[in-house]
Amino acid sequence: MIRVGIVGGTGYTGVELLRLLALHPQVELRAITSRADTGMAVSQMFPSLRGHVNLCFCHPEEAHLDQCDLVFFATPNGIAMQQVRALLDAGVRVIDLAADFRIRDVAVWEKWYGMSHACPDLVAEAVYGLPEVNREQIRQARLVANPGCYPTAVQLGFIPLLEAGLVDVSSLIADTKSGVSGAGRKAEVGILFSEASDNFKAYGVAGHRHLPEIRQGLARVAQHEVGLTFVPHLTPMIRGIHATLYGRLKHDADLQALFEQRYSGEAFVDVMPAGSHPETRSVRGANHCRIAVHQPQQGNTVVVLSVIDNLVKGAAGQAVQNMNIMFGLPETMALTNVPLLP
Amino acid sequence: MIRVGIVGGTGYTGVELLRLLALHPQVELRAITSRADTGMAVSQMFPSLRGHVNLCFCHPEEAHLDQCDLVFFATPNGIAMQQVRALLDAGVRVIDLAADFRIRDVAVWEKWYGMSHACPDLVAEAVYGLPEVNREQIRQARLVANPGCYPTAVQLGFIPLLEAGLVDVSSLIADTKSGVSGAGRKAEVGILFSEASDNFKAYGVAGHRHLPEIRQGLARVAQHEVGLTFVPHLTPMIRGIHATLYGRLKHDADLQALFEQRYSGEAFVDVMPAGSHPETRSVRGANHCRIAVHQPQQGNTVVVLSVIDNLVKGAAGQAVQNMNIMFGLPETMALTNVPLLP
Amino acid sequence: MIRVGIVGGTGYTGVELLRLLALHPQVELRAITSRADTGMAVSQMFPSLRGHVNLCFCHPEEAHLDQCDLVFFATPNGIAMQQVRALLDAGVRVIDLAADFRIRDVAVWEKWYGMSHACPDLVAEAVYGLPEVNREQIRQARLVANPGCYPTAVQLGFIPLLEAGLVDVSSLIADTKSGVSGAGRKAEVGILFSEASDNFKAYGVAGHRHLPEIRQGLARVAQHEVGLTFVPHLTPMIRGIHATLYGRLKHDADLQALFEQRYSGEAFVDVMPAGSHPETRSVRGANHCRIAVHQPQQGNTVVVLSVIDNLVKGAAGQAVQNMNIMFGLPETMALTNVPLLP
Amino acid sequence: MIRVGIVGGTGYTGVELLRLLALHPQVELRAITSRADTGMAVSQMFPSLRGHVNLCFCHPEEAHLDQCDLVFFATPNGIAMQQVRALLDAGVRVIDLAADFRIRDVAVWEKWYGMSHACPDLVAEAVYGLPEVNREQIRQARLVANPGCYPTAVQLGFIPLLEAGLVDVSSLIADTKSGVSGAGRKAEVGILFSEASDNFKAYGVAGHRHLPEIRQGLARVAQHEVGLTFVPHLTPMIRGIHATLYGRLKHDADLQALFEQRYSGEAFVDVMPAGSHPETRSVRGANHCRIAVHQPQQGNTVVVLSVIDNLVKGAAGQAVQNMNIMFGLPETMALTNVPLLP
Repeated sequence: MIRVGIVGGTGYTGVELLRLLALHPQVELRAITSRADTGMAVSQMFPSLRGHVNLCFCHPEEAHLDQCDLVFFATPNGIAMQQVRALLDAGVRVIDLAADFRIRDVAVWEKWYGMSHACPDLVAEAVYGLPEVNREQIRQARLVANPGCYPTAVQLGFIPLLEAGLVDVSSLIADTKSGVSGAGRKAEVGILFSEASDNFKAYGVAGHRHLPEIRQGLARVAQHEVGLTFVPHLTPMIRGIHATLYGRLKHDADLQALFEQRYSGEAFVDVMPAGSHPETRSVRGANHCRIAVHQPQQGNTVVVLSVIDNLVKGAAGQAVQNMNIMFGLPETMALTNVPLLP
Repeated sequence: MIRVGIVGGTGYTGVELLRLLALHPQVELRAITSRADTGMAVSQMFPSLRGHVNLCFCHPEEAHLDQCDLVFFATPNGIAMQQVRALLDAGVRVIDLAADFRIRDVAVWEKWYGMSHACPDLVAEAVYGLPEVNREQIRQARLVANPGCYPTAVQLGFIPLLEAGLVDVSSLIADTKSGVSGAGRKAEVGILFSEASDNFKAYGVAGHRHLPEIRQGLARVAQHEVGLTFVPHLTPMIRGIHATLYGRLKHDADLQALFEQRYSGEAFVDVMPAGSHPETRSVRGANHCRIAVHQPQQGNTVVVLSVIDNLVKGAAGQAVQNMNIMFGLPETMALTNVPLLP
Repeated sequence: MIRVGIVGGTGYTGVELLRLLALHPQVELRAITSRADTGMAVSQMFPSLRGHVNLCFCHPEEAHLDQCDLVFFATPNGIAMQQVRALLDAGVRVIDLAADFRIRDVAVWEKWYGMSHACPDLVAEAVYGLPEVNREQIRQARLVANPGCYPTAVQLGFIPLLEAGLVDVSSLIADTKSGVSGAGRKAEVGILFSEASDNFKAYGVAGHRHLPEIRQGLARVAQHEVGLTFVPHLTPMIRGIHATLYGRLKHDADLQALFEQRYSGEAFVDVMPAGSHPETRSVRGANHCRIAVHQPQQGNTVVVLSVIDNLVKGAAGQAVQNMNIMFGLPETMALTNVPLLP
Repeated sequence: MIRVGIVGGTGYTGVELLRLLALHPQVELRAITSRADTGMAVSQMFPSLRGHVNLCFCHPEEAHLDQCDLVFFATPNGIAMQQVRALLDAGVRVIDLAADFRIRDVAVWEKWYGMSHACPDLVAEAVYGLPEVNREQIRQARLVANPGCYPTAVQLGFIPLLEAGLVDVSSLIADTKSGVSGAGRKAEVGILFSEASDNFKAYGVAGHRHLPEIRQGLARVAQHEVGLTFVPHLTPMIRGIHATLYGRLKHDADLQALFEQRYSGEAFVDVMPAGSHPETRSVRGANHCRIAVHQPQQGNTVVVLSVIDNLVKGAAGQAVQNMNIMFGLPETMALTNVPLLP
């Protein structure tokens, strides 16, 4: 049994981790921390967990996280970097669901996240936890930087094209749409039901924190700097990301075969039949990314449609997938549930 | 392994049955029928099932249902009664998710459902599949009438009060609210997104088919005819039923203790702490009924709040629960998933 | 032209007042105050008002409200009572959209609202602004207490029955459902999109502040104390209240005719044809209350369905209606827009 | 007074026309036809119109449309072309809200719409009703082809760039998102609440009927064939279109000034301040198009955000705007209502 601790369990990635770990046969949930809600039963805050999780939120000081085998950070950005070193020193492995260790260039990170990094050396050590790219490094990693939600959907959609050198990397476009849970469980006016419902808008067009993360990931695959226009939108649904990706084809190719081959061994990437339009609900609650590739009117623009559940493959599910890899378990363990449709 | 067939798998109860049965360790799914969609892969219609269900819809004539151990009918009302006798004669057990066998008084059934019943004798044999009331009969049954969604939520909420003789049975009120999936996967204008979204309405106030079913169930428990006003409403969510129940107390009692004791042994009925307001999302995708009991201002009106997922405890999940009982399996098998929140 | 000021214009009742007043031919909007957002253009906060409202939010001290003919308070409870006396003394008339002057029994008010009242004498003077009951007093009033949203829908539904002495006043039930905008434009987790969407719940069953307001209104009409069970629910839509009202009939009567006659002269109360189920969207954005009355199975329980837009007839629209009455204008002026459907 | 008839009034564009025309001071609504619902009161089908529209749906044969000054067709594609000639011959002017007269190349029209055109000569005469481009021709037109919803949002967003020759016309991208009402009031499974809610998907990536219409409009402005990739998406809201447009800049320019100048005289096109993200709800129920222009990271990709209400500026509102122009009325008459927010 893997002894697991969770730091910061009151947000949506926290409760989603709990949903998945509660049924994981190899996990013993030891502690879940929250400063603000110390002492409250987890199932009081999240009645969906009644009968599944019997823990109370505990104070970080009393969580004895150093006695865990693995600690997940489901915290705001900037928290994990304060605490990771002590855990690693104690022999605990760490998966950070926030952004502290995702960007290898610390200066870039500091610019986009607006703070000084507490442990640049650990950034260098951290492994970017996208298993479809980095599986072997994840297996050995002490510290995994779990990817962001948009970056997961966008990278999985572009990777086959970039690996094959099929598209002009200077003019990539990612038009992405997210459900509101992507904004977190924070008391903010902009994500109130009465503001976000029956409404659609873009945001962060001038610059979004996931832009450097995506650029870094695509550049690694393309082995070249990429030019990317990234426009995120807020769409009135709870869960789900739909990335619509555009690239300029340099020459013809069998795109369907390319995608199918690239992901043939991947349990969580599903290349849909030619002509498909994947729906976000087809992955609701599940760890899958479903992808379709189109070449409208046989022109020179390729369109990739990539959908994930932002809380699962875009956060907690991918974290569990990484945990399974790190601990030598079957990669799909506790991640086989069927999406909820309707 | 239980060899299972499903008749009529293209509706919401059908796909929900598939979601649950796909992960049931003791079920071998043999056939799923659809006249209109014969030959289509189930996972083409429901991409959420890709990788989980590899069957195609087959024509009823070619389904060899008589070689199953159990057949579920997830059909419109009036279909099962045409086909059940042959199956029973072939030794196949049947769970009907429609209404054909729910009402013991055939004349009442024929009045509310507007057709002649094809097999009144089987109505007499059928067992009403509400395990919290009828568990032992279900165990032996050849034919189970799976309860309606509203009747499940309403009966579970009223039962403790009626069994204890605490309320005036002549003036019960059930004000119920259902998500739109309760209306089925039918092409009808009234349940279009643009009609049902951002909107709330009552319907069927003059009379709804679930009224006689609820009355029958409550009368059986009360051992007396009941007077019930039943007002269903359509609420803009996909899944969930919230029943708000009103009764006039005949004398004081410890209502919280009453409910907790009544359901102490029930895996799927969760009596919430005093003062709670159960939310439908706390059971989304799960087979639970969560109940809270209130006595506002210590007056003589008791208010019971009862929530279920209409497609799970209100349909497919309860059907799987009944199957587990009928076949001697643990009652919770394949029904332990955690509700999806948010 | 009526010179109008608005105190507290950054909430939903504030922006709704602006929407209605912007097109009112007899209103000159002089000032709208907000301490937190002083200096911001109103149309920056609410882009829907671009081209319609050119004011900026101003500091209360600089609003010169004493030079207005009428001031609306669209503030949290407890603000208006601090400022009304000075305005009245300056000859300004006031409509308070909050609850400060709704409850005539100051002790009751103080208990439910948890504060001491700043001006009990003005409570005695204030007129409860439900025109269908109080039109003549409103005409003369210096200070109008604009009714709550639930109280409007519930009172309009019960009034004909109570005036006619048709129902047992000791056992009234109001099962009410509100859209989320009723909770205001406040940064609170419980009304986030991801919390309130695809979800339904009751709240405040033990006691809600609108209970004493409704009781007071019904008692005045019935000329007798009433026993009322009031259960509010939150439903995933932006606007709209649906009240489902239950009463025990004391004797038979032509309920349809009773309702039609009671409201025959009312521009904003629409008694629907017998058998109707009014939908909240049928009044979306409009000042109407639509009502249907049912007697299911000809039993002794009467069911009234009453719908309003909580922000219009339940708040800002009714306030404009009151203003029109107070200033001798046609009651429907600027309130004739057609509901937005779909 | 303009005597107006409407053919096909039971869809969403029909009810929206009624909403707008009911309050138009220069319109006398003479007839509204529906074969299927002949004899039904319009306000029975659409209770929002109670008190505003007293007509019944009448049979086309009995509508005496030839006695109108203007007839709107709010019908499925292929109907108007059968009836327009007789009306024009009778001196009646026509606005077709469907697609029959939008595409000047009849062969292209026939390919995309899958039928033969009944009156190619009238296609040549018809004026494309986008006032911001074609105002003068509309003024004189006997027959106006009201633009599609996507084409309106996309053209208004691209026009300033194309007129100025600022972007490479061979690689335009329009990533568009529509509320579900854009699919019409048709009984189809795909647009049921339980299918379209809490879900997001692309559709028609291989080819959508609005593609040739947009291409034609952009080519006219650019005076050159354009290469356009057009990807529509369905988003879970009732009303609204959000077009996110991408173009490759050929050289630098003051984009904000360009847009502001182009639309400075337009009542219904609102160029938002630099850095804005227009929301669909900011035009809910109103005839406005709000536009923002961005140049992320000062790169060579321009991003235009353009929002409309698909039923207003994208259909019925633009039709009324065209009527106002055709009959010499102020262009904004009956179109000044404030958007409904929240």
